[in-house]
Amino acid sequence: MSVLTASEQSPAAVDLGPAAALSCRECGERFPLGPVFACASCFGPLEVAYDLPSGDPEGLRRAIEAGPKNIWRYAPLLPVPADVADKPNINPGFTPLVRADRLAAELGITGELYVKDDSGNPTHSFKDRVVAQAVEAARAFGFTTLSCSSTGNLAGAVGAAAARAGLRSCTFIPHDLEQGKVVMAAIYGGDVVAIEGTYDDVNRFCSELIGDPLGEGWGFVNVNLRPYYAEGSKTLAFEICEQLGWRLPDQLVIPVASGSQLTKIDKGLRELIALGLVEDRPYRIFGAQAEGCAPVSRAFKEGHEVVRPVRPDTIAKSLAIGNPADGPYVLDIARRTGGAVEDVTDEEIVAAIHLLARTEGIFTETAGGVTLGVARKLIGAGALDPSLTTVVVNTGDGLKTLDAVAKTAGPTATIRPHLDSFREAGLA
Amino acid sequence: MSVLTASEQSPAAVDLGPAAALSCRECGERFPLGPVFACASCFGPLEVAYDLPSGDPEGLRRAIEAGPKNIWRYAPLLPVPADVADKPNINPGFTPLVRADRLAAELGITGELYVKDDSGNPTHSFKDRVVAQAVEAARAFGFTTLSCSSTGNLAGAVGAAAARAGLRSCTFIPHDLEQGKVVMAAIYGGDVVAIEGTYDDVNRFCSELIGDPLGEGWGFVNVNLRPYYAEGSKTLAFEICEQLGWRLPDQLVIPVASGSQLTKIDKGLRELIALGLVEDRPYRIFGAQAEGCAPVSRAFKEGHEVVRPVRPDTIAKSLAIGNPADGPYVLDIARRTGGAVEDVTDEEIVAAIHLLARTEGIFTETAGGVTLGVARKLIGAGALDPSLTTVVVNTGDGLKTLDAVAKTAGPTATIRPHLDSFREAGLA
Repeated sequence: MSVLTASEQSPAAVDLGPAAALSCRECGERFPLGPVFACASCFGPLEVAYDLPSGDPEGLRRAIEAGPKNIWRYAPLLPVPADVADKPNINPGFTPLVRADRLAAELGITGELYVKDDSGNPTHSFKDRVVAQAVEAARAFGFTTLSCSSTGNLAGAVGAAAARAGLRSCTFIPHDLEQGKVVMAAIYGGDVVAIEGTYDDVNRFCSELIGDPLGEGWGFVNVNLRPYYAEGSKTLAFEICEQLGWRLPDQLVIPVASGSQLTKIDKGLRELIALGLVEDRPYRIFGAQAEGCAPVSRAFKEGHEVVRPVRPDTIAKSLAIGNPADGPYVLDIARRTGGAVEDVTDEEIVAAIHLLARTEGIFTETAGGVTLGVARKLIGAGALDPSLTTVVVNTGDGLKTLDAVAKTAGPTATIRPHLDSFREAGLA
Repeated sequence: MSVLTASEQSPAAVDLGPAAALSCRECGERFPLGPVFACASCFGPLEVAYDLPSGDPEGLRRAIEAGPKNIWRYAPLLPVPADVADKPNINPGFTPLVRADRLAAELGITGELYVKDDSGNPTHSFKDRVVAQAVEAARAFGFTTLSCSSTGNLAGAVGAAAARAGLRSCTFIPHDLEQGKVVMAAIYGGDVVAIEGTYDDVNRFCSELIGDPLGEGWGFVNVNLRPYYAEGSKTLAFEICEQLGWRLPDQLVIPVASGSQLTKIDKGLRELIALGLVEDRPYRIFGAQAEGCAPVSRAFKEGHEVVRPVRPDTIAKSLAIGNPADGPYVLDIARRTGGAVEDVTDEEIVAAIHLLARTEGIFTETAGGVTLGVARKLIGAGALDPSLTTVVVNTGDGLKTLDAVAKTAGPTATIRPHLDSFREAGLA
């Protein structure tokens, strides 16, 4: 397999702020920072290890609060240079944490319920958070082309971020995507390559390309830049706690595709505790999947520690990863924190999309329907405590998955432009 | 004509913060606050008059900066109660002011160029700003149903805001809208009534409904709540100046549909000057229209003071108002400030959408293409000074007008999933 492992890398003096090294999540071996993602010893996934600021949590908190109103307020906790906010980047984050009282009432939640709404990011999904980190890593390693394999959303985020940063982009998508996603991928002027095959074929092709001279100078955000990219999800944890007044929520419900987001939110929470920015007390993390692609949920319920791959078949396409790389870590976190992993049907996804829109005015994509649908199911099952403070993470935007609700969201009535006709409709 | 004029209203003790009265923009006569929009004496349009805080600009500035990261930080300058941030509302605003150096370079702008990007609002257009004000006015006047006539975007914003606020909504749209806009209008669970007719028919129907007992208890955001609603656009002026470090830009380019937004941005700038929050110095305001609906631009060029209605025919549908209510005020502001009103073709609109996406990673709707296209044209004509600080206002999101670029934003190449096939494409 043509993956770049850490041993192939020459140590270079890159400035990625507090990022000190890459460390293997399996065996713990450390490697210098570089565009690599697999341990040279055990092929485990690499993640960023930090020299984090210590000893003055109050000073750190004040510095964060005085920072920019985007993810770069947390630059001291991310693999980015200290002057990151002065460089052209897409600057996502600091999206609303919406107090959802009307939704809580419908769900029977008596504690505080919040929706962390990431649809306000530049390309309207949480992907902007992770891609923004990859841009800085690409600059640090001297890459001039930003790339990815994508089912659409990520290609749009990469295209936008590369355009803002003045990098070239070349993204790879399956040839049969919906027009809206193709437009979103191509509008930013980078190259978009449609591949005759499935998303798996696209992925396999990108792995080959990274190992070939053709791919030299290319930073694949979700492959050779993955350790840096993935850290972006920590900012969801940081923002949630800051927006709660530097307080941990009791419970979080998070969608699971590759599992990276959930894993990194947990990492972010643990970092805040270690830094003394929030009180050290228990929290519970719940993972959400669609029944049509629920390998992690199934493993959780069956008590397994490994995840058996599945062939996805669900309307929640942005969560449709049948062989999730971080699945075992998700299982571990759910079990360690006293959470769970659950799944819902496509019908429950659509119902949850409508529920969130009707109660809170938030139009989420199918992935958000999965997350809220699972939250609802977990309350019904008694797994989620309705008296505690709960945060549901909405990672995307309904405008990108219109088809899912096209049949169930239409006019109440069609009338002639006369008061009599309106009267007959019985809506006054 | 069944409009509610001020004389029909009984004075009530409503708390809309610093809003003191309604005053006629034509004859200056003042009326008590109420759900009315036309002067009882001369039928001129009413606008909100304030008792604004005075004497301590530094204190006001500090209070604003310590406020919530949305439009309610400016609550002391808006027709809303002081505790507005504690009520359920859609909370738009404080969207990014993007420093656009790469765009500036392409346009030959040597001064500072910024894009005020309102696509990050909850329903991805500036409409959330105005609807949020209307929600508070509806509460103050005891309305239980929020309504509007709309070509789509406004219906979505009203539906979302009503859902969050716990109000009923019933919006009216033409029967032949694009599916995406219908879904956006209906998803929030309010009633959506499709009317067999044009947008003009929808408008006429709504005017009839307001005067009929059927419409009792209904707040039409863009009719009987219009004076309050329109004030929301001032927050664009407030945010731009605050984000520039409490500084006026030299030049602003703003789209013109009804003309309300441009008029209120000017009002907001003048209020900041009067309050001592920014230095009193000249600024120039430029209006942008599509050639296929350019009644104000035409009147400006021909030196007229009135605007002759046109029949719209342009891809910039959200700006397609052939008989703009605030057209004469736009002409007045452009002339008074030394600005201009200009228009661009549909082809120039599409080119500008691509330009903004390619240089800054911002995907705007057709209205944004109009604004940037006009900015580009004005620079070419020497009307916009390229050495000054310029702000271009982006009011919406490209995801809502995909059709405009569907033909020009597609894959660069389609390949088989093999390196040879990629090599042949010549993209490496």
